[in-house]
Amino acid sequence: MSKKGFTLWFTGLSGSGKSTLAQFLTPKLRELGVPVEVMDGDEVRENLSKGLGFSKEDRDTNIRRIGYVANLLSRNGVCAMTAAISPYRSVRREVRDGCKAEFVEVFVKCPLEVVEERDTKGLYKKARAGIIKNFTGISDPYEEPEKPEIVVDTAEESIEQSAEKVLEFLRSRSLIG
Amino acid sequence: MSKKGFTLWFTGLSGSGKSTLAQFLTPKLRELGVPVEVMDGDEVRENLSKGLGFSKEDRDTNIRRIGYVANLLSRNGVCAMTAAISPYRSVRREVRDGCKAEFVEVFVKCPLEVVEERDTKGLYKKARAGIIKNFTGISDPYEEPEKPEIVVDTAEESIEQSAEKVLEFLRSRSLIG
Repeated sequence: MSKKGFTLWFTGLSGSGKSTLAQFLTPKLRELGVPVEVMDGDEVRENLSKGLGFSKEDRDTNIRRIGYVANLLSRNGVCAMTAAISPYRSVRREVRDGCKAEFVEVFVKCPLEVVEERDTKGLYKKARAGIIKNFTGISDPYEEPEKPEIVVDTAEESIEQSAEKVLEFLRSRSLIG
Repeated sequence: MSKKGFTLWFTGLSGSGKSTLAQFLTPKLRELGVPVEVMDGDEVRENLSKGLGFSKEDRDTNIRRIGYVANLLSRNGVCAMTAAISPYRSVRREVRDGCKAEFVEVFVKCPLEVVEERDTKGLYKKARAGIIKNFTGISDPYEEPEKPEIVVDTAEESIEQSAEKVLEFLRSRSLIG
């Protein structure tokens, strides 16, 4: 492949807008001739990680698998977008180090109050009620990225603005034309 | 990607020569400009399927994961070579049906007596001794493909001959130039 692949690694709380932003970017990137694959958290848990739970160990295993596939894709010229919460800094660092192609971490920032208010999947309510255990932000930690390549703030920005930030960064690195 | 990706799905007993043939083909395909990724059984168990055992259910899960990744790669112009035993016909059928790009099943045929005599990893001895349970060919079934695209016979052919059969098939389908 002559094309330069890369990984767009979205990280953030459940409901912060990771998958939505990835889906919004997909046709825009394809229009630019970039092959895209999106691996969102739910899809990956179905296809790669069925049976894994939400302990730190299981979460890390899930993230390593996503990282393995993102590396295979991106080093073959694909834009691999991943949209799993990926709450732990250490394993995000590990997958970054394992990626041969460019690794772009996108922190999808949104205050807990806002995602909890949105509660698109009704999960925060269940987490607060103790029905779901180990829920990131409620009963499990989320470690914010220290030096992400991109920060989008979905509580303050429109999706167009967030997407433009990502595209602008990719242009600045000559990853897209 | 303008290139046509495809999956080369090697199946056969442990020690039949799946990974060896995949590794032998890799530089030949790359010389032709084909991007290649090899997922052999051991590597995949480490990266995608740690914790899974060798029951039919766990084997099927392992194969589904390999199929998921092979599909992602091949539909993006990559030649995805997989070299897991993949003993069950039904799940091989399932991954074939799930692959958007061309799916080429290569039956790496070798009589049990021969692979047992080779016993490259010392596994057959352990399986015969009952130290390893559920070992394909000894204490677990291997279902031969009914209509594989290619059959190579590693007991009778040189690796060059087997590789040439594969390349010849790929040329006949215009999958390589």
